[in-house]
Amino acid sequence: MAVRIEHDTMGDVEVPEQALWGAQTQRSLQNFKIGQEHLPRIMIRGMGLVKKAAALTNASLNQIPSELAEHIVGAAEEVIDGKWDEQFPLVVWQTGSGTQSNMNCNEVIANIANQKLGNPLGSQNPIHPNDHVNRAQSTNDSFPTAIHVAASLHINELLIPAVKALRNTLAKKSEVFNNIVKIGRTHLQDATPLTLGQEFSGYVSQLDHALVRLDQALLGLYELPLGGTAVGTGLNAHPDYAEQSAAQLAKLTGLPFVTAPNKFEALAGRDAAVFASGALKTLAVSLNKIANDVRWLASGPRCGFGEIRIPENEPGSSIMPGKVNPTQSEAMTMVVAQVLGNDTTINVAGASGNFELNVFMPVIAFNLLQSIRLLGDACHSFNDNCAVGIEPNHDKIEHFLHNSLMLVTALNPVIGYENAAKVAKTAYKEGKTLKQVAVELNLVTEEQFDQVVRPENMVSPNVK
Amino acid sequence: MAVRIEHDTMGDVEVPEQALWGAQTQRSLQNFKIGQEHLPRIMIRGMGLVKKAAALTNASLNQIPSELAEHIVGAAEEVIDGKWDEQFPLVVWQTGSGTQSNMNCNEVIANIANQKLGNPLGSQNPIHPNDHVNRAQSTNDSFPTAIHVAASLHINELLIPAVKALRNTLAKKSEVFNNIVKIGRTHLQDATPLTLGQEFSGYVSQLDHALVRLDQALLGLYELPLGGTAVGTGLNAHPDYAEQSAAQLAKLTGLPFVTAPNKFEALAGRDAAVFASGALKTLAVSLNKIANDVRWLASGPRCGFGEIRIPENEPGSSIMPGKVNPTQSEAMTMVVAQVLGNDTTINVAGASGNFELNVFMPVIAFNLLQSIRLLGDACHSFNDNCAVGIEPNHDKIEHFLHNSLMLVTALNPVIGYENAAKVAKTAYKEGKTLKQVAVELNLVTEEQFDQVVRPENMVSPNVK
Amino acid sequence: MAVRIEHDTMGDVEVPEQALWGAQTQRSLQNFKIGQEHLPRIMIRGMGLVKKAAALTNASLNQIPSELAEHIVGAAEEVIDGKWDEQFPLVVWQTGSGTQSNMNCNEVIANIANQKLGNPLGSQNPIHPNDHVNRAQSTNDSFPTAIHVAASLHINELLIPAVKALRNTLAKKSEVFNNIVKIGRTHLQDATPLTLGQEFSGYVSQLDHALVRLDQALLGLYELPLGGTAVGTGLNAHPDYAEQSAAQLAKLTGLPFVTAPNKFEALAGRDAAVFASGALKTLAVSLNKIANDVRWLASGPRCGFGEIRIPENEPGSSIMPGKVNPTQSEAMTMVVAQVLGNDTTINVAGASGNFELNVFMPVIAFNLLQSIRLLGDACHSFNDNCAVGIEPNHDKIEHFLHNSLMLVTALNPVIGYENAAKVAKTAYKEGKTLKQVAVELNLVTEEQFDQVVRPENMVSPNVK
Amino acid sequence: MAVRIEHDTMGDVEVPEQALWGAQTQRSLQNFKIGQEHLPRIMIRGMGLVKKAAALTNASLNQIPSELAEHIVGAAEEVIDGKWDEQFPLVVWQTGSGTQSNMNCNEVIANIANQKLGNPLGSQNPIHPNDHVNRAQSTNDSFPTAIHVAASLHINELLIPAVKALRNTLAKKSEVFNNIVKIGRTHLQDATPLTLGQEFSGYVSQLDHALVRLDQALLGLYELPLGGTAVGTGLNAHPDYAEQSAAQLAKLTGLPFVTAPNKFEALAGRDAAVFASGALKTLAVSLNKIANDVRWLASGPRCGFGEIRIPENEPGSSIMPGKVNPTQSEAMTMVVAQVLGNDTTINVAGASGNFELNVFMPVIAFNLLQSIRLLGDACHSFNDNCAVGIEPNHDKIEHFLHNSLMLVTALNPVIGYENAAKVAKTAYKEGKTLKQVAVELNLVTEEQFDQVVRPENMVSPNVK
Repeated sequence: MAVRIEHDTMGDVEVPEQALWGAQTQRSLQNFKIGQEHLPRIMIRGMGLVKKAAALTNASLNQIPSELAEHIVGAAEEVIDGKWDEQFPLVVWQTGSGTQSNMNCNEVIANIANQKLGNPLGSQNPIHPNDHVNRAQSTNDSFPTAIHVAASLHINELLIPAVKALRNTLAKKSEVFNNIVKIGRTHLQDATPLTLGQEFSGYVSQLDHALVRLDQALLGLYELPLGGTAVGTGLNAHPDYAEQSAAQLAKLTGLPFVTAPNKFEALAGRDAAVFASGALKTLAVSLNKIANDVRWLASGPRCGFGEIRIPENEPGSSIMPGKVNPTQSEAMTMVVAQVLGNDTTINVAGASGNFELNVFMPVIAFNLLQSIRLLGDACHSFNDNCAVGIEPNHDKIEHFLHNSLMLVTALNPVIGYENAAKVAKTAYKEGKTLKQVAVELNLVTEEQFDQVVRPENMVSPNVK
Repeated sequence: MAVRIEHDTMGDVEVPEQALWGAQTQRSLQNFKIGQEHLPRIMIRGMGLVKKAAALTNASLNQIPSELAEHIVGAAEEVIDGKWDEQFPLVVWQTGSGTQSNMNCNEVIANIANQKLGNPLGSQNPIHPNDHVNRAQSTNDSFPTAIHVAASLHINELLIPAVKALRNTLAKKSEVFNNIVKIGRTHLQDATPLTLGQEFSGYVSQLDHALVRLDQALLGLYELPLGGTAVGTGLNAHPDYAEQSAAQLAKLTGLPFVTAPNKFEALAGRDAAVFASGALKTLAVSLNKIANDVRWLASGPRCGFGEIRIPENEPGSSIMPGKVNPTQSEAMTMVVAQVLGNDTTINVAGASGNFELNVFMPVIAFNLLQSIRLLGDACHSFNDNCAVGIEPNHDKIEHFLHNSLMLVTALNPVIGYENAAKVAKTAYKEGKTLKQVAVELNLVTEEQFDQVVRPENMVSPNVK
Repeated sequence: MAVRIEHDTMGDVEVPEQALWGAQTQRSLQNFKIGQEHLPRIMIRGMGLVKKAAALTNASLNQIPSELAEHIVGAAEEVIDGKWDEQFPLVVWQTGSGTQSNMNCNEVIANIANQKLGNPLGSQNPIHPNDHVNRAQSTNDSFPTAIHVAASLHINELLIPAVKALRNTLAKKSEVFNNIVKIGRTHLQDATPLTLGQEFSGYVSQLDHALVRLDQALLGLYELPLGGTAVGTGLNAHPDYAEQSAAQLAKLTGLPFVTAPNKFEALAGRDAAVFASGALKTLAVSLNKIANDVRWLASGPRCGFGEIRIPENEPGSSIMPGKVNPTQSEAMTMVVAQVLGNDTTINVAGASGNFELNVFMPVIAFNLLQSIRLLGDACHSFNDNCAVGIEPNHDKIEHFLHNSLMLVTALNPVIGYENAAKVAKTAYKEGKTLKQVAVELNLVTEEQFDQVVRPENMVSPNVK
Repeated sequence: MAVRIEHDTMGDVEVPEQALWGAQTQRSLQNFKIGQEHLPRIMIRGMGLVKKAAALTNASLNQIPSELAEHIVGAAEEVIDGKWDEQFPLVVWQTGSGTQSNMNCNEVIANIANQKLGNPLGSQNPIHPNDHVNRAQSTNDSFPTAIHVAASLHINELLIPAVKALRNTLAKKSEVFNNIVKIGRTHLQDATPLTLGQEFSGYVSQLDHALVRLDQALLGLYELPLGGTAVGTGLNAHPDYAEQSAAQLAKLTGLPFVTAPNKFEALAGRDAAVFASGALKTLAVSLNKIANDVRWLASGPRCGFGEIRIPENEPGSSIMPGKVNPTQSEAMTMVVAQVLGNDTTINVAGASGNFELNVFMPVIAFNLLQSIRLLGDACHSFNDNCAVGIEPNHDKIEHFLHNSLMLVTALNPVIGYENAAKVAKTAYKEGKTLKQVAVELNLVTEEQFDQVVRPENMVSPNVK
């Protein structure tokens, strides 16, 4: 492979000739041959946004010439737009501050800009990766800022709309299913009835709460470390830089970013990410309930609950019609398992800061952004390929409802508690329906039974 | 042991003669000989409060005679006040709805009341544990309501004050330490300076954020399932019961409880508890950082960082003065490990509901309330026995600060970058101080050095 | 409360007059008012065994007079036997080395012995808690030794027999159910048949593997830190002490304890405990599968799978016969959730040692021993109150099996693949049985159908 | 994009013209747009090996013509060798049995073979993906077999050698450092001395134990599900197929694979993977201790422990020599955090099987293989870029050792306990060395002190 030679304080480094990255990125490639996990697209976008905001702020504070800032901004925008993702080759398992990914970003932006100005790769002229692109920043404040920006964007752009889409589908189903009375189940055992719409309304309510929690978690992510520089003091930054750069990021993204009230925490703790993961795992727990209910209710076709039908998206069995594997539920619950594990990782990483810095930042970014992405994508997939097509299986619902022994409670006022119990016990022992037995025992007529035992009267508070 | 015989639908049960509990509790004792973990005091109080509120609401809705309600209320108050805790002998590992603990509470209250009215234990007359104490309730709504009430009380009464106490101590320290300039450390390596007060301000900010998160989590806990009865429909309850009983609980506790907007979620999901645990684990992560920093900064006495001194609470070594083991940090970080594990348990349990009910409620209650208790107690203990007594070790702080090579950056404007680097390299290689070397190399005089290298000018944004 | 005054290097301490513990325990009580979690009985037994073994070894190595050793041994035996458990009042949340619990044990044993010799509590004469009871030990080696001893005993005495009991019950069921052909289910969907005995044989195999894993984990626990003293060097111990004290513990317990090959690891790492927790969580995962299958297979009575019946241990519903809540499964799966959380705690604690010591020992002991106890008790409870009474529900099994569309594959060789598919599709669409449709379409006679479609021929490898 | 049309039981599917995959893979691509996580190379190799072994076994049992088997084997070998990895485009988040990845493999192998025989892609002739490549298999047995094969290979080929390499480096260091006496630290506080070699020997012992645990975990992974087919009964397989295919895989890999003794467990439980993850997390915990000790011991250069020096792999600070960030420790501890999270994911997934199948297989495979890979790579990276270059910093070690107050214990026999304590206290209070004070107080001469206080005599059992 053709290479060019770059220099840093430790000496010469061979960099692939056409690479936009430079010496520091290259050293990381050589020193960290660990796995294949990379920071995702949204994180590159986040880093690009930080560089753009920093350049604009530095220009407005007269820290770098406007002309240089313009070129940095132009190059950063290409990074933001995803034009150079393949120029970010580093793995997650690097320096714990993300220094090398930050330098990677500085090097790429400098090279893009300098190349446009007619200078060769690696020239660092007129735009220097450190002195200009990284101006008034340390990795220690710019990398966690990029995490906050990336996570905030990802939650707002991907996850919240996905949760809303699924929520709205389930709300529509809840409405449509509102009058379908079915057997309730507690402890997996038959219980008093409710409507299928009521059952689905519980899912809607879970997701409504999830949306509130995501908003609560975002508040912490909106506080940005930028301006703390190396240890939180803001050394080498302008006193107005922190506030103005946050305002700049707010303007660029349309999100209400502010500068973190305390920069020492902002560098040394990643608590906002830990709490955001707490909101994500709670959403995961809700989705697990929903996806599980859906697959159990759709179990069958003959030997399960079978109260709903879900779309058949791929061949189940060529010979057995109706074997519709609940594959979207399976994908969803696997995502849930991943998110719960990611939460553990984030907890351990978040708890492990020392003194002025938390050096588990790449692994926190990786897991947090993966959880957001997976939950968002899985909500969309589950919605589009499963939820929208859920249909009630009226026959099964009716069958179970009227077969159930639980309805006997409705007979209490008419034939007395003891007779009602006798009806239920006999029906259970002899494998008959309540109606059969009640009539056989001459306690009620068929007509009376039908008049009294009306499950639809059992689905709301009924005591006066 | 002398026994009395009680009856239930399955036959006779021998209950200890003087026990206030009855048949259902006794069966649980026999069927679940698993471990020794009990629901804590605060949960018994929560259950008592639910029974009291239910009785008051039922009376006001004419569902039970006022006279009976009064007796229930009286007995419930004794339960609330902790007079009968030994009458709650059941373990956590029982029916997943907590049915047996709920019945235990019903039985105890009925027996207290009936005994006061001159009737023997087990008489169920005039107060019946089911018909009266459990009126308009199912375990499925009253037990999770008790969890929400207990957790809300525990957070408000124990945890928040404890976090505030520690926060205030640290804030006071931060103020007092505000002018003590010390070396910063990132990657565990020497970095640019900050003040000890700034370092502590980061801890304060972490706890300030924690308090916000606890308030966010409480919002979900304030929504009560009561009124959903068996499956969420409210069957066997009065239409006004849900709202009025929540209002009653709000009145009794002074906390803003409301009835949950959707009772199907309220029974089948325990998401509010899962999210609350997310706030608790975030607090735990913050406390881990604080407790760890404290013990590392206090490490020594001779061979560690030793920048602060912590109180000596117990003999460290009889012969070695100054060996002050950071035992409060150790207790705190063990609590953190427990809370992180409890969070995993709560996640697994919260994710495992089916259909109309989550049947992992006792284990959720046990872990959630344990986390609150341990964090609250540990904050108080750490505050009282450690934080309040933290003192700076000026000698060590000075020694490190002036020994550090990082201060060389202050010389840049005076002697130029290259000379500054040379000073640092020489000092490092020869084991000397910057000042020694700078003077030896005739780059500055001692006086100049002292005038220029002023760490106190490096602890804030300094660029103009 | 009446008190006596004790002295230590920090001054006077008021100890309850009759307490067998002394100053160090008392200081811990005052300094660590955190929660209510105590080290369990088995750990006290483990500490007692260590003290007994140490005394015997010290005597045989002439480190303490035989007469004193005898008295220590006598007192230790009472501690081992559980006579003085209430004299161990400390909580888990103390010094991370367990120093205070170790001192508690030293103080109690010394006081028991001295009291028998006619000396007052606190006299420390002739038996001194440190110089004699703790002779040749540091908490740093004796406390983790006690953990290993306690865990090994608990696994051997409680857990393995409990797992075996459940395994044997399930094996018996598997045998008895061997010819009961039933529908299989994959993805919760109807699949090809197997026998109920085969289904249960899977559970047996899971537990057989679990027993192997427990034995593997025990190997690490059998290696004892004792003899490492304060930092692993064995300072202040006789060169033969480590080996002989381990041999003594082996003799006292009948378990193959040996001295750890490396004492520096033995003090600084708790990896054997972490790995043992790994075996426990794997067992938990297996038990979760078993307990879940049992409750789903028993779901109903009318509206679930209902292929098995489980014992009715407590009233389900007074009016609805057959509502048998699977409470033992619920207790078991809650235990599983707890064990998975405990595993997280142990991981975090085990990962957090520094230099010569891991100071998360009490929390590791607490969680490890709780997991062992809960799994053991839950296996016994599940076995005695559920597994032994599991009975097949032949009607349901038959019903599902013959209703299933999956059996159509057996018709392939007779009527061809296409006709078979047509039969299945028609049956599914029209809600009929395969037999009905096959006969209606004149593809086979009833007799032919019964001859060909024999599920019992589909439960083993059948290709030649 | 140019496409070809393929058919399956659900109709037509457009497949990219040159893709080696077919309809089922394509449907998965469309239905599961979730994240970007793919099964790793080693898993594709595992699937290829299963297909090769199955073809060879089927041929030897006369289930498919030898000629067809030969072509399948040839194509499978290319898959095994990694020639077609880009033809495996599916994400982890798919059907929980891995059906679509299994079909992907069948389709690719069939197309490779058919293409070589001159038939167009998608012809399924003469090699049919289902009838021939998947012969005598179900995804339900072949996919978990591939997991076991992949994990076993990865542990044997990557992880064990990596752990051994690091272990051997540390063992060499331990030997070289054997006579370097240094201060010990417990509770982060100065303690009695040990040698640097002893400290490192603890790390070696941790890794020695890890190797034993990996071997224990492998035993379970060596048991293969293949032959269980759809539900464990082996329906549609030859009675000798299970055993022979396992023997074939043993022959192909050189690993002692055997057929699982019980196929019902082998499909429905993934316990061997859960336990293997338990061994991996224990290794992770050990590595965390090692990597942490290394970075703390290397902290500085001036204001930390600084007892060892680690290689400088990338520029720390341009101006501050000696700021060597412990980046390899940071990468390692981030890997540890990931592995602990992966363990949680695997626990949740492993606990969630129902009836005849566990449908969390892709997520288990993904996390298990990632943990193996990351630990293996991180061990190599840490070894090559850090451990091999660790050097003692004799000055610091000496300084701390002789500054320590802990050595005073050596004076006990000479000047008595009380005087020794006085020396230590005075030294501590006045900030002097023990020697200074002891001489000043006329308790010993300098010569006596040097003769008596010899740390090198304090690093082994010394009592006679």
